[in-house]
Amino acid sequence: MEPRISLITLGVEDLERSYRFYKDGLGLPTTWSPEKGVIFFKTRGTCLALYPFDKLAEDVNPALKVEKPKFSGIALAYNTRTKGEVEEVLEKAKRAGGKIEKPAQNAFWGGYSGYFSDPDGYLWEVAYGAFEFNEDGSLAIT
Amino acid sequence: MEPRISLITLGVEDLERSYRFYKDGLGLPTTWSPEKGVIFFKTRGTCLALYPFDKLAEDVNPALKVEKPKFSGIALAYNTRTKGEVEEVLEKAKRAGGKIEKPAQNAFWGGYSGYFSDPDGYLWEVAYGAFEFNEDGSLAIT
Repeated sequence: MEPRISLITLGVEDLERSYRFYKDGLGLPTTWSPEKGVIFFKTRGTCLALYPFDKLAEDVNPALKVEKPKFSGIALAYNTRTKGEVEEVLEKAKRAGGKIEKPAQNAFWGGYSGYFSDPDGYLWEVAYGAFEFNEDGSLAIT
Repeated sequence: MEPRISLITLGVEDLERSYRFYKDGLGLPTTWSPEKGVIFFKTRGTCLALYPFDKLAEDVNPALKVEKPKFSGIALAYNTRTKGEVEEVLEKAKRAGGKIEKPAQNAFWGGYSGYFSDPDGYLWEVAYGAFEFNEDGSLAIT
């Protein structure tokens, strides 16, 4: 098994709404559109995918009839190259219809960060100062 | 904003248990250990991180006292290079203490896949046949 995550799929309530948030709002590139029933973004390294929540649950197990949770237990993170970008990205997410869950502030781990949630409530931390970057934009995990 | 996901953090109930599952069971590389309170794996593209569920919720908002959901609404995916690897990875996850949620089978989208869940119930799809690979092991999203 190679050390990589190929895809992260978010189960969403409204595919069109989430597509607009991530494509138009955050500017993530894709050639897919909602009528195809699934969206794959060309995010580097690990691909972000959107798929209807009910269908995702059904694909795992048709007996899995569950409510969408308030807090998934998972947070995605976007690490910035400058401190100023943290506010910029949070503002961008807000303008796109996201919610700022925690304004940018000094973090206990020594960096600077905040959180926004997407239209389904999935959390993104926007963080500066944790790690250096590799050439391809991924984090140089120590 | 660059098109990338820096980190995906799973909020886990037992950091030691999850560390063992991903490091010893699945073989993901890391220099971190549970006494540091957080684990970062050197996964390509997007870094996989483990952090206690309660602390993750508290980091977002101390008022966010929520139950860990049965189904997070999110699925990670590991795409294989051969069909046979799908069963191999599912078996590896099972031996490591994971649960096979859906045995390997032909998928509606034309490929071959199955699902396992990690010790916290977070879902991983193991899939073959969706996309070609880039040189770095990431998916060549069309």
